[in-house]
Amino acid sequence: MPDRIRGLWCATLTPLGAAGEPDHARLAAHVTRLFGAGVDGIALFGTTGEGQSFSMAERRAGLDGVLARGVSAERVIAGTGCAALTETIELTRHAVTAGCAAALVLPPFFFKGISDDGLYASYARLIDRVGDARLKLYLYHIPQVTEVPIAHDVIARLLERYPGVVAGIKDSGGDFQHTRRLLARFGELAILVGHEPHLPTALAEGGAGTICGIANLYPRLMRRFHDRSLGGGYEEDLQRIETFIARLERYPLLAAFKALLADLTADQAWEALRPPLVPLAAAQRRGWIAAVAETGIVAERGTT
Amino acid sequence: MPDRIRGLWCATLTPLGAAGEPDHARLAAHVTRLFGAGVDGIALFGTTGEGQSFSMAERRAGLDGVLARGVSAERVIAGTGCAALTETIELTRHAVTAGCAAALVLPPFFFKGISDDGLYASYARLIDRVGDARLKLYLYHIPQVTEVPIAHDVIARLLERYPGVVAGIKDSGGDFQHTRRLLARFGELAILVGHEPHLPTALAEGGAGTICGIANLYPRLMRRFHDRSLGGGYEEDLQRIETFIARLERYPLLAAFKALLADLTADQAWEALRPPLVPLAAAQRRGWIAAVAETGIVAERGTT
Repeated sequence: MPDRIRGLWCATLTPLGAAGEPDHARLAAHVTRLFGAGVDGIALFGTTGEGQSFSMAERRAGLDGVLARGVSAERVIAGTGCAALTETIELTRHAVTAGCAAALVLPPFFFKGISDDGLYASYARLIDRVGDARLKLYLYHIPQVTEVPIAHDVIARLLERYPGVVAGIKDSGGDFQHTRRLLARFGELAILVGHEPHLPTALAEGGAGTICGIANLYPRLMRRFHDRSLGGGYEEDLQRIETFIARLERYPLLAAFKALLADLTADQAWEALRPPLVPLAAAQRRGWIAAVAETGIVAERGTT
Repeated sequence: MPDRIRGLWCATLTPLGAAGEPDHARLAAHVTRLFGAGVDGIALFGTTGEGQSFSMAERRAGLDGVLARGVSAERVIAGTGCAALTETIELTRHAVTAGCAAALVLPPFFFKGISDDGLYASYARLIDRVGDARLKLYLYHIPQVTEVPIAHDVIARLLERYPGVVAGIKDSGGDFQHTRRLLARFGELAILVGHEPHLPTALAEGGAGTICGIANLYPRLMRRFHDRSLGGGYEEDLQRIETFIARLERYPLLAAFKALLADLTADQAWEALRPPLVPLAAAQRRGWIAAVAETGIVAERGTT
């Protein structure tokens, strides 16, 4: 297992088969293509991957399915958080046993307004019950979806009790001031941003990299953007990405991602989502694809 | 299967064993006691029952466990909603096969801001995949927890497409104006309120009854309150219940419920909750039990 997650990781979209089940072969092919385009690793069944829309059994099988098709477990961080802690424990144990680089774990997200003690108890019980020294736990902060933020004092308590297990944080909150506070307080953790435009600043302030959605679509652009974020000269790519996101924000995020990936790969199967998410309506889809074309980001079309 | 749910149904708390697992024997004994005190039926693994904190396997086993101990399936509405539709389908099918009166189904609650089409698609796929004419579906509206309200136009579409299957709504939103709009528009559905003080007005306007938490604690009071809501003279009990709720609102709801049930039954095992919920701290617990005593509602102590 690598010491820590760093660099450019893609929060992979999950393709669906005809009956609405995760399509392992298409997913593995997508991941292989991403790796070929310079992506360092993937986060499987995160929010972008509609992870919560799949059963525990589907998530287990999905991980097994991509590993069986040659994806290296060391390049996979498995989204294993569930509403029910017992399912989180089982999925996390499975990911550790499979040799995954790490487990990316949402807080239990059904109840709102949970206490710091309750959040701490959730992660502590997870770690205790998995009971495997190989576990590398990444805390998954995405309060605009979960409505359950991960308090910094809880992180500190976990880090004190479980050093070496609590390994990092995916900060998908989209608020860089929040990321900055994490970076300042938790220098020993690998902190990865979800919002692509934050990458240059995050890296400059000690961040480990990004786990992001746009890498599904434009992995080469994201690779270059990441590397130039370290080496200089990223401004033009940042502008491209910001323009893209400004258009994207007018559409349902995951439906727009999947419609665009279907377009870029000429593979209509990518259009499907599992309810409660649904594909874009035809007119909306046309508007979105046209909007993307206008941004000029499509220069990468055919090379993704 | 009864034609529709009506009357006084208890959203049962879930007792836990030493390892934090649902304690089937203690749960069945609690249900039997509630039935003996006049409760018409129970909702198993709803929000009050910490349903989302238990795995699909634990929820299946929990239902089987109480039925095996003599609880009549016709008096059970099973909470079967999950974040992942495939788990909702499996749990719902299990509840139907077990002969439950109905299934109480949350909307998929992970993603926020989902479209009406997406919400409709979720319930429609559930009904289609369960594919059993015995299914009676109750839509579970509790937006203060799920952050996913059930739009009335979605209910209307479901009702048109699946008459006889979509059987009712549990309105736990706590906003009686919302309940009133449901009652006015969906007269053919059994509409049950979660907020106990709304019961008299709901019944007067055509509501079917209540699925509520306080019946765990004061089933005889709730029985009398329900019956007087129909027959007159409920005002004194309404005052008791409102006073109780006013105190309750200063505490974490489920921890307070469980602490009080432990006190009323002299059974400390009831104190336990599964993370992310945690029991009241000792001082807080003492304050809460004292606050309840002051309300005078404890006249029922020993007779619950």
